[in-house]
Amino acid sequence: MTTRTEHAASAPLLSATLSATDEIRVAVSTVIFSLRRSSGAERPAVVIPLVRRTRDPHDGQWALPGGWLGGAEGLEAAASRTLAETTGLAPSFLEQLYAFGDVDRSPSRVVSIVYWALVREDVSSDPALENVRWFDATALPELAFDHNQIVDYALWRLRNKVGYSRIAHGLLPGLFTLADLREVYEAILGRRLDPANFRRQVEGSGTLIPTDGFRTGSHRPARLYRYNHDVELAERGPLPR
Amino acid sequence: MTTRTEHAASAPLLSATLSATDEIRVAVSTVIFSLRRSSGAERPAVVIPLVRRTRDPHDGQWALPGGWLGGAEGLEAAASRTLAETTGLAPSFLEQLYAFGDVDRSPSRVVSIVYWALVREDVSSDPALENVRWFDATALPELAFDHNQIVDYALWRLRNKVGYSRIAHGLLPGLFTLADLREVYEAILGRRLDPANFRRQVEGSGTLIPTDGFRTGSHRPARLYRYNHDVELAERGPLPR
Repeated sequence: MTTRTEHAASAPLLSATLSATDEIRVAVSTVIFSLRRSSGAERPAVVIPLVRRTRDPHDGQWALPGGWLGGAEGLEAAASRTLAETTGLAPSFLEQLYAFGDVDRSPSRVVSIVYWALVREDVSSDPALENVRWFDATALPELAFDHNQIVDYALWRLRNKVGYSRIAHGLLPGLFTLADLREVYEAILGRRLDPANFRRQVEGSGTLIPTDGFRTGSHRPARLYRYNHDVELAERGPLPR
Repeated sequence: MTTRTEHAASAPLLSATLSATDEIRVAVSTVIFSLRRSSGAERPAVVIPLVRRTRDPHDGQWALPGGWLGGAEGLEAAASRTLAETTGLAPSFLEQLYAFGDVDRSPSRVVSIVYWALVREDVSSDPALENVRWFDATALPELAFDHNQIVDYALWRLRNKVGYSRIAHGLLPGLFTLADLREVYEAILGRRLDPANFRRQVEGSGTLIPTDGFRTGSHRPARLYRYNHDVELAERGPLPR
């Protein structure tokens, strides 16, 4: 028995079920989360932008923004380009989510490297682009390809990660109240949090810097905080930046 | 400005730096961790199997086991096949690690979907395959391509994950003592842990089931435990199984 290493293209394939690799194409897609407030709603909704397909397969269905990976383009660069083309925005957080490569996920063989991104609420207004619309991420129509499954997985990652990292701040503007921050957690987790417990936990976390500013309005004045940028939104480990 | 969705192959590319996608090939590689005890060593070493390349590029250098993705083969199936061809074993844990796709990581354009796996110590004996050898994961030679960086990232993921999941059990045989389990943590984290504190933590975790067996030998008899398989080694979320 012989062994093979990656890039050993000319080694004989062991199984007849494996066919030539030149039929496999690589796409990059991005799940872009933001928050949207609607009057009367108990909490903001987690929303994502989708693009309506204008060709087959799945003509007319909504799909994640994305495109083919360019031959001279890195994976993260392709994800950033996708995001810029769809929303015109640079994300506050961008991370690789997962590579989806099931054989039958598309009529032709496509491996999609999927990223997920956060865009702050104050800059996620409806893009002035044809065929792009923001949807409530928890109430999507049937999407093209396996994109419903991809969004479900991205939501699961978001909910997990909000518990052990600082990524909630990727959805907030530069100055915010503790109530704003709590609302982000509530929107992601889909449930109410006790305000006093929440205040105690975040004040002990070292990630917030109180400012001298206050928000005034119909309620009593609330102190404005900013994020401590010495603390990274999420650990990347030894991956290159 | 137009928008594009994934699979919109015939849409014009916006940048001249993007070339045709048919030059991009997809490989799958796997970082396979196991433990190896050597006499006199304070704790077991975390080891990985590497394959010596027998062709260019990087002829003669060691590389992660892997190969080209087959046209009719899913990503995880390709990773499992790789593992079987290299070690003849089925892993106790297999998870997608990351997709590496830097433009210059190989002379030709290759996107590698990398998995990581755990193999139990009692079944990770040296494979009877040419050009395969187990190495201490923390003291590797210079590997082919970006494989040193990939192993570093996999080690970082392993060390992180051992703190909030049960994957240490993926490196243990069916029956083990608390000292065995502590040694796995010590090997992964690279430092000694206090035995009494460790015992308190794992006994409170609900993941261990005490058996009636004991290991006897030069020390006083130590109770044998088994893993509670109602608890998953690691959460996969809504990803298909």
